[in-house]
Amino acid sequence: MLRIGIMGATGYTGLELLKILGRHPVAQIAWLTSESNAGQCFGQVFPVPPPVADLPLFALAEADLSAADVVFACLPHAAAQAPVAAALAAGARVVDLSADYRLHDATNYQAWYGVPHTQPALLAEAVYGLPELHRTQIKGARLIANPGCYPTSVILGLSPLARGGWLKGTVIADSKSGVSGAGRSPSLKTHFVEANENISPYSIGRAHRHLAEMEQELGAQSGAQSGAQSGDEPGQGAESPFQVVFSPHLLPVNRGILSTIYVNLPEGVTEAEVREAYRTMYAGEPFVYLLRPGEVATLNHTVNTNFCAIGLTFVPGTPTLIVTASIDNLIKGASGQAVQNMNLMCGLDETCGLK
Amino acid sequence: MLRIGIMGATGYTGLELLKILGRHPVAQIAWLTSESNAGQCFGQVFPVPPPVADLPLFALAEADLSAADVVFACLPHAAAQAPVAAALAAGARVVDLSADYRLHDATNYQAWYGVPHTQPALLAEAVYGLPELHRTQIKGARLIANPGCYPTSVILGLSPLARGGWLKGTVIADSKSGVSGAGRSPSLKTHFVEANENISPYSIGRAHRHLAEMEQELGAQSGAQSGAQSGDEPGQGAESPFQVVFSPHLLPVNRGILSTIYVNLPEGVTEAEVREAYRTMYAGEPFVYLLRPGEVATLNHTVNTNFCAIGLTFVPGTPTLIVTASIDNLIKGASGQAVQNMNLMCGLDETCGLK
Amino acid sequence: MLRIGIMGATGYTGLELLKILGRHPVAQIAWLTSESNAGQCFGQVFPVPPPVADLPLFALAEADLSAADVVFACLPHAAAQAPVAAALAAGARVVDLSADYRLHDATNYQAWYGVPHTQPALLAEAVYGLPELHRTQIKGARLIANPGCYPTSVILGLSPLARGGWLKGTVIADSKSGVSGAGRSPSLKTHFVEANENISPYSIGRAHRHLAEMEQELGAQSGAQSGAQSGDEPGQGAESPFQVVFSPHLLPVNRGILSTIYVNLPEGVTEAEVREAYRTMYAGEPFVYLLRPGEVATLNHTVNTNFCAIGLTFVPGTPTLIVTASIDNLIKGASGQAVQNMNLMCGLDETCGLK
Amino acid sequence: MLRIGIMGATGYTGLELLKILGRHPVAQIAWLTSESNAGQCFGQVFPVPPPVADLPLFALAEADLSAADVVFACLPHAAAQAPVAAALAAGARVVDLSADYRLHDATNYQAWYGVPHTQPALLAEAVYGLPELHRTQIKGARLIANPGCYPTSVILGLSPLARGGWLKGTVIADSKSGVSGAGRSPSLKTHFVEANENISPYSIGRAHRHLAEMEQELGAQSGAQSGAQSGDEPGQGAESPFQVVFSPHLLPVNRGILSTIYVNLPEGVTEAEVREAYRTMYAGEPFVYLLRPGEVATLNHTVNTNFCAIGLTFVPGTPTLIVTASIDNLIKGASGQAVQNMNLMCGLDETCGLK
Repeated sequence: MLRIGIMGATGYTGLELLKILGRHPVAQIAWLTSESNAGQCFGQVFPVPPPVADLPLFALAEADLSAADVVFACLPHAAAQAPVAAALAAGARVVDLSADYRLHDATNYQAWYGVPHTQPALLAEAVYGLPELHRTQIKGARLIANPGCYPTSVILGLSPLARGGWLKGTVIADSKSGVSGAGRSPSLKTHFVEANENISPYSIGRAHRHLAEMEQELGAQSGAQSGAQSGDEPGQGAESPFQVVFSPHLLPVNRGILSTIYVNLPEGVTEAEVREAYRTMYAGEPFVYLLRPGEVATLNHTVNTNFCAIGLTFVPGTPTLIVTASIDNLIKGASGQAVQNMNLMCGLDETCGLK
Repeated sequence: MLRIGIMGATGYTGLELLKILGRHPVAQIAWLTSESNAGQCFGQVFPVPPPVADLPLFALAEADLSAADVVFACLPHAAAQAPVAAALAAGARVVDLSADYRLHDATNYQAWYGVPHTQPALLAEAVYGLPELHRTQIKGARLIANPGCYPTSVILGLSPLARGGWLKGTVIADSKSGVSGAGRSPSLKTHFVEANENISPYSIGRAHRHLAEMEQELGAQSGAQSGAQSGDEPGQGAESPFQVVFSPHLLPVNRGILSTIYVNLPEGVTEAEVREAYRTMYAGEPFVYLLRPGEVATLNHTVNTNFCAIGLTFVPGTPTLIVTASIDNLIKGASGQAVQNMNLMCGLDETCGLK
Repeated sequence: MLRIGIMGATGYTGLELLKILGRHPVAQIAWLTSESNAGQCFGQVFPVPPPVADLPLFALAEADLSAADVVFACLPHAAAQAPVAAALAAGARVVDLSADYRLHDATNYQAWYGVPHTQPALLAEAVYGLPELHRTQIKGARLIANPGCYPTSVILGLSPLARGGWLKGTVIADSKSGVSGAGRSPSLKTHFVEANENISPYSIGRAHRHLAEMEQELGAQSGAQSGAQSGDEPGQGAESPFQVVFSPHLLPVNRGILSTIYVNLPEGVTEAEVREAYRTMYAGEPFVYLLRPGEVATLNHTVNTNFCAIGLTFVPGTPTLIVTASIDNLIKGASGQAVQNMNLMCGLDETCGLK
Repeated sequence: MLRIGIMGATGYTGLELLKILGRHPVAQIAWLTSESNAGQCFGQVFPVPPPVADLPLFALAEADLSAADVVFACLPHAAAQAPVAAALAAGARVVDLSADYRLHDATNYQAWYGVPHTQPALLAEAVYGLPELHRTQIKGARLIANPGCYPTSVILGLSPLARGGWLKGTVIADSKSGVSGAGRSPSLKTHFVEANENISPYSIGRAHRHLAEMEQELGAQSGAQSGAQSGDEPGQGAESPFQVVFSPHLLPVNRGILSTIYVNLPEGVTEAEVREAYRTMYAGEPFVYLLRPGEVATLNHTVNTNFCAIGLTFVPGTPTLIVTASIDNLIKGASGQAVQNMNLMCGLDETCGLK
């Protein structure tokens, strides 16, 4: 059995982890932490059936880190840096669902997240946990930086183009996300009456932090030096052949992300070549599936699954390719991918608990 | 022109008042107050078009009360007691949308709302502003206690029965309300992800404060001494021939209330008699309409209008009558009814701005 | 391995069965039928990932009935009578998700469903598949009549009272159901714009067919002769100590049922006794859980699970008990319960694939 | 008084027209037609209060065309051609809400709509009814082609750029529309369970018919020869300096359109210049409002109003301008704009009934 610890278990990603791990053949919960609900049991925080309802919640300081073989850190960014280090020191493997270990470059991290990184050695060690890109490294890793939800959809949607060297100029990712992506803390923006019957763009252009991950990973596959910079410090990205303009929208649904991505294909690149590149890259992937020509991705293709669905629409008479990519933001965009990474790290079947 | 002041203008009832008054031929806004947004303009609080967006917000202490002919008080209960008195003293007519002046009995008020009433003389003067019951008194009033949203649907749904002396024993009101009824302050319960794709009963039985209004008004029409008491002090209501069990539910819609009400008709009372009683009472009413036999009320019958729609379903082989009554909680259940009351108080056509 | 056939696989219950069976350790799909989509594969009808997307759909006449050990019939009522008989004749065990085998009395069936029953012998043999009531019979059965969604919530919510002999007079079940309960055929009533931001009562009183099941099962536990009759033929139910008034409402959510049930407890029956009766009946049940005093059931307690959650609210100063019971209409109210029944029939762990 | 006839009154645009005209000081309904509901009254088709509920519905052939001063045609495309001509012949002014008179070029019309145009003279006479572009012509017109919902948001969002000669290359309009845009006929795509908790792109690229209007109107302002061609006949548009890629998405809300539009500004064009161009064009407009720098349009800015809200986001370090434009698809995108056009045609205050 794998003994599991979850830091920050009382958000939506913690809840989702518990649902997935409840179906996992070899996982068993060792401990859960929650600073705001320590001393309560999980059922006092979420309306869930037993036995999960009866699991106790501890303050992080009281959790026995050494009692876990694998730790999932579901803490806010910046707050995960030290606890992740502590869990590793206690001998656990760690999947960090925060943004703290995703950017390889500490300067870039500080530019986007506004705080210095206190664990540069671990930052260097961490593997970006997108199995479709880094499966081999994940298998040997102690520390996985689980990708952001938006980046999962955009990177999977564009990677075959990046590898083909076909990403050039401005790439537009118009993404729509369910409200669970904003977490469980109430705010005016996520108040039912404000979000329902509405759709709101936010942090559009080059202002959202997830841009940094997208350009790091797509840039690496393009063979380019790329480095997204936060909005107010426009990029040094002269070396990068492409630049992402990213527009997240808050969508009145609980879960799911749809990214509608617009790419100008270089002259001479054919539909057949592009389709072949996607087929080749994703042929053996257990959790990516390509839609037939003429089909587009919708949330219904992937919600409540660990899948990413990808549709390709070539616009006649133009160089534009529209990629539609959908995922469940809490599963492939967070907790499902985290378990997929755990499975890989621990030598298990990658799909355990996920199909 | 009627100069209008709105106290506590930055909630949903304030927004709705501004929409309705914007279509009203003789109303013009004199001032708006908001303690939390004083110094801002209305458009910084709500995404509305000009010219409403440009209206300034004042702290209550800075508003020139004497510049208003009519004041709408949209303050929380308890907080409205003193400002209402101040507005009256400054010479305005007042429509209070809080619960502070709805219950005639100060002891009953304190039992349900947990604070003493500091304006007993005004409490005695206030008229319960349900035009279908108290039109004559409203016309001459200085101070109107605007009814609660749930009570509006339940009292209108049952009044013909109360007047007929047909309310006996336990009356069950199973009500469903849109989330705007809970106000604009974010909370976990009204967080989109929690309320969406869900329905939640709350304060069911005899625990919700609106019970007091319902029994006061229905009891008066029954000719009975009635007095709802808060849940933990079970009623002295031996004298009342009926008792309401009231179950509000939080419904995943923005606005609207549907009350499904179950009454056991006394033996010998016929469907024809009951239908006739409803027709008689509501024949000339501008904002109540009866559905045809076989029809039931839904939110779509009334949302975005000042109407109450009522359907009567007689259950074959049983003494049970099911009354379905729907209103828009922000219009007939709050701001529309408030304007209807203003129209009556000021000698205007009752439907001004409302049709 | 258990070879599974699904008749009428392209509705929401078929989709849900495929999801559940995909996690079931010993189930494998033998064939799926669909009259309207025969010749297509499942992925052309629903946006699902492989391998389910690739499953072929056959006309019923072309399915090899003998290739299935267990057949789930997801056909409309009346249409299931003959195919169920054929599947049994071919040697399969059958779980019928339609209403065709739920009512023991053929006359009662014809009264409610408007067609005669052509398989009276099988009707007599069929077991009503609510494991909490009939587990022993289910284990030995060839043919299970899977309960209706509303009845599952109401019968589980009231059975301890029925067994205690405490159901008397009028019992009111005010139920709210997600739109998937209406099936996948488009209609004006289920058109997004009509159902969204709305709630609609329908077939209220004693008009909905599910009443017959509720009274059959609760009556049997009450030790009474009970027999609901359709609305226009008011009941002979003089012998029955209670009568259900049932008001379904169409709720703007995809899935889930909440039943708010009002019972007048006989004099002298105490809260402690009643709570003990519920605890006793459901103590060992894998899929029913009781909420703590003060808690009420919501959809969030059970959606996407096979659980029924039950809350008990005793109304102070009145004889009224409010039972709140929630289920997922597609899981415990249909496909999950069907698999639970299959597990019992086949000697498997009752919870296989369901936790 | 203006006597109003509505052809095809039982869709959502007809309902909305009746709501707006009910508040209009000089409009009175002369007749309503509906082929499918002729002989019924309006209240049997929509759950509305009296007196609208009591309006009778006639077959088109039975309507007395001469009894109307203004006719609104809410018929499907192709079906409006002849009735519009008949209404004009009977002496009425006509606002056609279908697509039949929007495209000036009959060949282009046939290419997109698949049928020939039988009224070429009227096609030449018709004025495209976007008051912000064609107010002077509208004032003198007999026949107005009321713009499509998507085009209203995109054309208003881009017109200042077109006039400045700043639209070049590929312009991407990623639009999200509420489901009422799809009409009231039930279909699988608009079935509640399919559309709720989902978002679906459809007809993306250069496949949607509204593209033709967008390019006609924006092209004219650019001073260019432009002519969108349907998807399978890629354009002859060599002369046009820009090309729109248009991606509509079905959004799980009842009403509202948000268009997120991506433009590459020509080198040297400054933010200040662009903002000034928008301010200049829309300064005196009663129904267009510009958001402050830093703000983006959402549905809440315009739903239930006749406004278009426009936000401008300049992406630092890139030539990209993101225009967010929102409207209510049934009001500014259909019936509100139709009344605005009627007001202009008839010499009334343009805002009558609309504020």
